[in-house]
Amino acid sequence: MSLPPSVHRALVKIVGERGVSVERSVLRDYSHDESSFEPVMPRAVVKPDTAEQVAEVLALADRYRLPVTARGAGSSLEGNAVPSPNGIVLSLERMNRVLEVLPEDFQARVQPGVVYDELNRLLARQGLFFAPGPASGDVATIGGMVGNNSGGLNALRYGVTRDNVLRLQLALANGTLISAGTRALKSSSGYDLVRLFIGSEGTLGIATEVVVRLHGVPERRTAWANFQSPEAAASAVFEIMRTGIVPGALELLDPESVRAVNAVLGLAWPELPMLLMEFHGTPAAIREEGEEGRRVCQEAGALAFRFASDGAEREQLWAGRKAVNRAERTLHPGCTFVKSDVAVPLSHYAQAVHQAHSLAERQALKLMTYGHAGDGNLHTSTAVPSADAEALSRAEALVEGLISFALSVGGTATAEHGIGLAKKRFLQLEHGPAVEVMQALKTALDPNGILNPGKILS
Amino acid sequence: MSLPPSVHRALVKIVGERGVSVERSVLRDYSHDESSFEPVMPRAVVKPDTAEQVAEVLALADRYRLPVTARGAGSSLEGNAVPSPNGIVLSLERMNRVLEVLPEDFQARVQPGVVYDELNRLLARQGLFFAPGPASGDVATIGGMVGNNSGGLNALRYGVTRDNVLRLQLALANGTLISAGTRALKSSSGYDLVRLFIGSEGTLGIATEVVVRLHGVPERRTAWANFQSPEAAASAVFEIMRTGIVPGALELLDPESVRAVNAVLGLAWPELPMLLMEFHGTPAAIREEGEEGRRVCQEAGALAFRFASDGAEREQLWAGRKAVNRAERTLHPGCTFVKSDVAVPLSHYAQAVHQAHSLAERQALKLMTYGHAGDGNLHTSTAVPSADAEALSRAEALVEGLISFALSVGGTATAEHGIGLAKKRFLQLEHGPAVEVMQALKTALDPNGILNPGKILS
Repeated sequence: MSLPPSVHRALVKIVGERGVSVERSVLRDYSHDESSFEPVMPRAVVKPDTAEQVAEVLALADRYRLPVTARGAGSSLEGNAVPSPNGIVLSLERMNRVLEVLPEDFQARVQPGVVYDELNRLLARQGLFFAPGPASGDVATIGGMVGNNSGGLNALRYGVTRDNVLRLQLALANGTLISAGTRALKSSSGYDLVRLFIGSEGTLGIATEVVVRLHGVPERRTAWANFQSPEAAASAVFEIMRTGIVPGALELLDPESVRAVNAVLGLAWPELPMLLMEFHGTPAAIREEGEEGRRVCQEAGALAFRFASDGAEREQLWAGRKAVNRAERTLHPGCTFVKSDVAVPLSHYAQAVHQAHSLAERQALKLMTYGHAGDGNLHTSTAVPSADAEALSRAEALVEGLISFALSVGGTATAEHGIGLAKKRFLQLEHGPAVEVMQALKTALDPNGILNPGKILS
Repeated sequence: MSLPPSVHRALVKIVGERGVSVERSVLRDYSHDESSFEPVMPRAVVKPDTAEQVAEVLALADRYRLPVTARGAGSSLEGNAVPSPNGIVLSLERMNRVLEVLPEDFQARVQPGVVYDELNRLLARQGLFFAPGPASGDVATIGGMVGNNSGGLNALRYGVTRDNVLRLQLALANGTLISAGTRALKSSSGYDLVRLFIGSEGTLGIATEVVVRLHGVPERRTAWANFQSPEAAASAVFEIMRTGIVPGALELLDPESVRAVNAVLGLAWPELPMLLMEFHGTPAAIREEGEEGRRVCQEAGALAFRFASDGAEREQLWAGRKAVNRAERTLHPGCTFVKSDVAVPLSHYAQAVHQAHSLAERQALKLMTYGHAGDGNLHTSTAVPSADAEALSRAEALVEGLISFALSVGGTATAEHGIGLAKKRFLQLEHGPAVEVMQALKTALDPNGILNPGKILS
């Protein structure tokens, strides 16, 4: 369904001719994210250059009850950025400037379209970094991270996006621009709008500027260990965290994940359950913590434990970890990937890993498990031939079983990918009557329901 | 104005005879907090024993449009817990049990009336602590900390209350109980209600159960340093934080504060600007960081720098710091204390300290400045004879000048005390049109305006 000519004209008036695309090929490019959901063709793709333009587009959309789905890189995994039916996509890709780096305050002010890795390349020159560390950082944008409250490899020590944003400029459904938060490191001044909007997947407002909190690049010591079983590796994670050490990263890969990485990157990592860890701090602290990590892993039955000998080996280890998703896609063309992203309290992590594998066995599915083990986050992925509806439903049953387990021990259905479309059926199960509160907030801030309707809430 | 008999009877039906007080002496005890606001007599003080009772009281209050002010210890400083006119006080003091400690998950589940120091005494047996560290921890309750998003001495390294609560059970204005958040360490599942309710000063809902995040008690190394001027001390703070070290605490006391502490505790600290700091971590890390702290302080012109020689000296240093407020009250009977609680980005901290002292000079007032310097938080206090309206208005002008400065450099009007009644006039100045969003959220969750009306918002 194409846009009414008057709306099209009004959009062009706001963002200019080159800011509105309605060509079929463009619409197709923006009709999906990295999830397996059926593409939904938007009626237009709008690419604003300024916050004011974003606000004006929303005001227009609100007047015409036009659904608006904000989009960063489109690398979300749960349908978060799949266009809402009969809506437009508002792509922030042109708003990709780093506006200000304030090294003395460990802060940077950026536009939402800035890519995570690019920001960090720039910051590295000043010995700083923006910490969360999404595995998809080569494409993920800061705005998308805000939308999904992205975590990542370094969230264990430094927190997720929600912990690392101080201030947001936001465009609201009614077309006003507000500034939420403060550049001070803490505040008790009114309601915490920053954290409310972070993770709202574009359903409450759209971030047009982001002040992120930075950290100094610490000394680092990287190590890996192999274990007999994924459960044994998971137990070692628990024991490491019990020491009180907070590693910079603590990641689990099961043999399936290692095999995929080896195949695609041409590596020869032992195809065994693997922990990848990194200690951050002063030289003395990471020496000490590294030894403690080794001791704990060995006591937990590690078959091997090795420190990366140099920067190149370190880079390769992390490149391998980050490639898991891509590797799986490369190895299984024509497949749909059914994923989960639960997190559980740490004492239940080994149990969650066990549960995932035994659910896979019961459903006769080949499973990949990996994830940010240190904060209890377990990713699973099952590759299913896209046409095989029966296998697909078994894969869904696996995810449902794992989420039920996570919720039964006080965990969450999604640690960092968000609810999107894929996890909506678990929202009520996880939050009960609190969903009505979420609905009331949504209605208060977006009474006409134009902001990414159908995501998170129904 | 006393309660209508039918409402009184209904309250008694919910919480029992002993749960409802209307005696004048009791009402008087609950008519104020630690701010200087005129007491407001509540119509009753209600003391529930259970979450269900809290919810039932709110349902009743909502039916009768009866304002409800939740209260922990009443140690708030900005009028946050002064009863709303014609309202009741809902005191959580009986709900003071630690329900569960989960050492393996670094978590505890507690009722809102639990006192901060008492919780930490219990946790210490297991080598754990709940970190924020309010200076008023000997009386402050967990529920009050949730209400105000309290910070404290250790917030620099471990975060404020908002960073250390995973899950809340909440009673809403309509009398429903919800559970918000998760026991997992991170989540992107729906809107972040936990952080929205934390710091809402009882205006959106009342916490009836809190799952707090704990840390292991680390190795600690405590030190103090003297400087020629408060500005020089503040500059040293900036230089320490620039190294990337995150101390467990980093506190500033000006000579006025030191004098007050000396007088009341019988100490003989040099009456000079003073930094109090503590390094937390592994033995090697705190050794290294301590030396780095010493080097930075000396380069910044410290007149003296000393490590605490033992646990007793450490205890005394922190007891002194925590006594500042009490010392001031003891030294100035019959005075009103006009306080501020700004926070600024670190690069402006020395400037803020300078600004405070020059504003005091201009207003011919004696000022005390102290606070959680490491996160840019500056407390100021002026003791003014309660009857001296003219001096009072100069003291208010000082606060206003300092807040204007803080906001002009991107800071906040209140870092940890909250808006309450005292800082309401700065809310619009700090947040602009975002205040309308806060108002919309308030209306959505408390349509009849029974929850602590008149606090934060008008």
